[in-house]
Amino acid sequence: MVEKIKITFPDNSVKEYNKGITALEIASSISHKLRKEALAVKINDKIKDLDTKINEDSKIKFLTFEDEEGKQVFWHSSAHILAEAITSLWPETKLTIGPAIKEGFYYDVDREPFTEEELKKIEEKAYDIIKKNEKVTRKEIPKETAKELFKDNPYKLELLEEFEDDVVSVYYQGNFYDLCRGPHIPNTGLVKAFKVLKASSAYWRGDQNNKQLQRVYGISFPKKSMLEEWEKLQEEIKKRDHRKLGKELDLFFTSDLSPGSPFFHPKGTIIYNELINLFREEYKKRNYKEVITPVIYNKKLWEISGHWEAYRENMFTLDVEGQTYALKAMNCPGHVVLFKNKTRSYRDLPLRIAEFGIIHRNELSGTLTGLTRVRKFVQDDAHIFVAEEQLFDEMKELLDFVNYIYKDVFKMNFRLELSTRPEKYIGDLETWNKAEETLKKLLDELGYEYTINEGDGAFYGPKIDLHVEDVLKRSWQLATIQLDFNMPQRFDATYEDKDGTRKHPIMIHRAILGTIERFMGIIIEHYAGKFPVWLSPEQVRVIPVNENSKEYAEKVKEYLHKNNIRVEASLKPETVSYKVREAQLQKVPYIIVVGDKEKEKNTVTVRSRENKILGEFKLEDFKNKVLEKIKTKTEILDL
Amino acid sequence: MVEKIKITFPDNSVKEYNKGITALEIASSISHKLRKEALAVKINDKIKDLDTKINEDSKIKFLTFEDEEGKQVFWHSSAHILAEAITSLWPETKLTIGPAIKEGFYYDVDREPFTEEELKKIEEKAYDIIKKNEKVTRKEIPKETAKELFKDNPYKLELLEEFEDDVVSVYYQGNFYDLCRGPHIPNTGLVKAFKVLKASSAYWRGDQNNKQLQRVYGISFPKKSMLEEWEKLQEEIKKRDHRKLGKELDLFFTSDLSPGSPFFHPKGTIIYNELINLFREEYKKRNYKEVITPVIYNKKLWEISGHWEAYRENMFTLDVEGQTYALKAMNCPGHVVLFKNKTRSYRDLPLRIAEFGIIHRNELSGTLTGLTRVRKFVQDDAHIFVAEEQLFDEMKELLDFVNYIYKDVFKMNFRLELSTRPEKYIGDLETWNKAEETLKKLLDELGYEYTINEGDGAFYGPKIDLHVEDVLKRSWQLATIQLDFNMPQRFDATYEDKDGTRKHPIMIHRAILGTIERFMGIIIEHYAGKFPVWLSPEQVRVIPVNENSKEYAEKVKEYLHKNNIRVEASLKPETVSYKVREAQLQKVPYIIVVGDKEKEKNTVTVRSRENKILGEFKLEDFKNKVLEKIKTKTEILDL
Repeated sequence: MVEKIKITFPDNSVKEYNKGITALEIASSISHKLRKEALAVKINDKIKDLDTKINEDSKIKFLTFEDEEGKQVFWHSSAHILAEAITSLWPETKLTIGPAIKEGFYYDVDREPFTEEELKKIEEKAYDIIKKNEKVTRKEIPKETAKELFKDNPYKLELLEEFEDDVVSVYYQGNFYDLCRGPHIPNTGLVKAFKVLKASSAYWRGDQNNKQLQRVYGISFPKKSMLEEWEKLQEEIKKRDHRKLGKELDLFFTSDLSPGSPFFHPKGTIIYNELINLFREEYKKRNYKEVITPVIYNKKLWEISGHWEAYRENMFTLDVEGQTYALKAMNCPGHVVLFKNKTRSYRDLPLRIAEFGIIHRNELSGTLTGLTRVRKFVQDDAHIFVAEEQLFDEMKELLDFVNYIYKDVFKMNFRLELSTRPEKYIGDLETWNKAEETLKKLLDELGYEYTINEGDGAFYGPKIDLHVEDVLKRSWQLATIQLDFNMPQRFDATYEDKDGTRKHPIMIHRAILGTIERFMGIIIEHYAGKFPVWLSPEQVRVIPVNENSKEYAEKVKEYLHKNNIRVEASLKPETVSYKVREAQLQKVPYIIVVGDKEKEKNTVTVRSRENKILGEFKLEDFKNKVLEKIKTKTEILDL
Repeated sequence: MVEKIKITFPDNSVKEYNKGITALEIASSISHKLRKEALAVKINDKIKDLDTKINEDSKIKFLTFEDEEGKQVFWHSSAHILAEAITSLWPETKLTIGPAIKEGFYYDVDREPFTEEELKKIEEKAYDIIKKNEKVTRKEIPKETAKELFKDNPYKLELLEEFEDDVVSVYYQGNFYDLCRGPHIPNTGLVKAFKVLKASSAYWRGDQNNKQLQRVYGISFPKKSMLEEWEKLQEEIKKRDHRKLGKELDLFFTSDLSPGSPFFHPKGTIIYNELINLFREEYKKRNYKEVITPVIYNKKLWEISGHWEAYRENMFTLDVEGQTYALKAMNCPGHVVLFKNKTRSYRDLPLRIAEFGIIHRNELSGTLTGLTRVRKFVQDDAHIFVAEEQLFDEMKELLDFVNYIYKDVFKMNFRLELSTRPEKYIGDLETWNKAEETLKKLLDELGYEYTINEGDGAFYGPKIDLHVEDVLKRSWQLATIQLDFNMPQRFDATYEDKDGTRKHPIMIHRAILGTIERFMGIIIEHYAGKFPVWLSPEQVRVIPVNENSKEYAEKVKEYLHKNNIRVEASLKPETVSYKVREAQLQKVPYIIVVGDKEKEKNTVTVRSRENKILGEFKLEDFKNKVLEKIKTKTEILDL
């Protein structure tokens, strides 16, 4: 009798199979679709090849291109196809390593730089390999055998030297083989679209003292249409690049005189300040208190907070009268000092302290990018001091706040991630468990879907992170809500409870946009510069049809300006169509052309930046409609 | 025949006198009052004793206690009286030096610390000397004779060694004499009020390695009533000290963790932000553009701007990837970089760039004081780029702005000072002359009174400074408007003029409040914490008469809060009178007590922080009245 094993699927259903069945056979047993789309399998949380035999009761999950982990396997296998293509064209080429990356894969090889034609040839050869639908097989061999196998490749030999195990794995496909941990897709034919993107130079193991290699980048997909979509998206991303739009729309610029500290032109400053105003308005409603704290602090502060030990290299330091100071890299310790400056009682809690403080972090100049990777920035952060029994309600309020900002204001989808106690943690287990339970209960009760990131919390407490999706389906980790049982203890910040005892409050660190700079970079791309009216640096452009209408155009401008609408009049000697086009390029939401007709009736004829005629309106009506758009923060321009 | 000389008086009148007449005799010839009040005399701009004989045609001006210079002579003479009192009580005491200071005088003497009783004795003895009305006489003697005279006093001998002249002056009064340049008042009887203030230790010549001396401080006046007024003022100043009020009203605090960088509590932050809002509102009306620029800059920027050479010690420097950077100590160079980042034309001028940037200056920790002397601050500064022909109109607009802020908003008097070309200047003489003429013409045309400070302009251009008087009659240099022909050249920042040529604009540096921090310190004292409604951190406090009225009190609070009025409700279990008193101590402008009567009629009964009953109002009417007070920024609380 054949021995049976129990297989548990992600939906917790259980099926019996014969012992020794492969994962691929199980996939076939479930559906034809799954058999075709499965790339690899997770057996008891370990990713394996599909031809892995299963000999005991297991929990399994098939990985497809939909899964982040499935994509990584797919792209890793594509790197092997890339390497096979290169070595079959130029057999003398020495392979080094070739991983999957966030989007696609690369392979570093030792040879001369590639020409454009050579890159084309590689792509063609890759398609040959795909068409052949070569079977991909894993073989485990003794390390010594492997050394013999790779004796002509010093890079692989160097890697082999470092492996601790006596047995290593090699993957074979066609005539090609590579030293590799795997796992891989079962055959090369699963790749339907393959593109070589570019080649650049790189050093063996990233060390400038080592030999220079050629790094060839590629991307691949299980469907042709997916590559087409991806290419369209890349073009869109290029067009929307916030650095490009930042220049075209006159929003900001960077300078070698202060790398990583962007300069904001007047128009960029308007957006910056509107984002801050959005929060100031909410702070009034939600009873936050704004404060102002120093930018530089004596090292002593950072020693108490623990940042001197853990974060020193990220801070700019300076000498002040013989003592070491640092530019603040976060507002939190200053807020604890402010909390401690007064005697606090339970009546003061929750105390919500917010600041738009200027933060500096010492990032390498090579990593700086426009607004999304900077050295100087402002966070919309706040620190909330709560008693333990207030935690649930406060977290509820925080999720409401986050929801308001992303769903109601920016109309962006997000997903939540709950990160729990890491291996190294401080505080007592009971508090941790209670806090984690509180967060889970909260998310469940409010009906939020969330993933759990076991062990990925901060050492001082669990946290909820928000991943926001932009219009190009890119995901950005923005808001974060972190519980902290640590900092109040370190500074011995306490409040007097009802019973007269002094207690340490729980401190919640939270930021909703994250940093104003980075968020601005993201929404410039999200909106492609076509901001909703409330965020548009210029909300209305007035254009007179001719010389005679100039006076009325100025009158309209003055009227709107006095009513707090950001408006410009275009009075220079150019044609109306030129001026309309110019306003559209500047993404001004409302473009008004006025002539004798409008002047007589005291009206304005309005078109949108999309060149849609929105109608003729009494000037006052138009003003009221625009003010309403501003107030409601809507993205719809129709009046 | 007696030879005659011509004496020219400050009003340019000329009188003839006999040669050899003393200044005191001339004073007698003018009026009895002047004879009595004259303390010293300025002969051809040099200050001299009144018994100085005049032997040639001269320009003279008598100095009284009204003149700053007169006060200084008076207090210097009072220091001699102090020294005479001390040495007549304790003849073994060694005198060192005893100057007049900004307010009063001190004398440093070598002896044991004084007890309180001894200080009292000194004051009594000083009054004896005053009553004796000792004549004060100057005697010029050879340096060698002086050495003999002061042979027992090593301090005076040390000073004598350093004198270059062979003849030195000694002043005598009664049995007392002192080595002194003078001048002095003619007799000790002119001092009518004399007060010993305190004693502290000081080192000979301020050097810690030298002997420790006792410094005795005093103040004196020509009228008894003046001392009484002064004492009252001191008490008022003490009561209003912004550090004291800052703590009592919960506005701000300072910490050793960052000396000179004040922390602002929520209430202080409200005032801080309201001051910035005041300017943002005006900027909209006056067409200023707000920008954001970096906080740290590569040394290269400061080298171009010239600050590295002239201002380096006042800047905090740091290392960034092996290069020297500095925390910005002013916004101007960054604004020129921003100006240069775009191609500018005459159509863009005047370009008014404003920023509420964070500035750091490396002040010695010993000199730091609350908000008035800090290391970190924000200026309400702007840099205006104008073509030369726009200068007059722009300066007119600037004076209008200054006038609006000080006369209309803060109701403070000010006087103007025009500082002209210094000896060392850059730029051509013609531009200087034209600019100075423009400023004079402007001030004359607008009917402003002003004094001219010859040669006190910046090396890069002339300037107008504003000295503002607070309610205690103290004068503060606040606003400054400076022309700059230099910075645009240094950075080669240009605009294209109508004729197609590229020109350097004139740059106007201007700040109206100066720094927000210092201005806040000044107005805390000016208002004694009783801010006008628009600046009050809490504008209304609601107090229920009993438990039954709590709900209505909360309703009133919610209503006002929703209408953008800063309001708190006092619901804790204390008596109404206790709560009213508490609100008054917190200087809340409007205190509302509500009970059944008010609840029924939906009204509020309002009293001011001065405990004046302002009446009963419909809730909505009260709200409108308060909003009107806020909008008009009035200081009057009556409704």
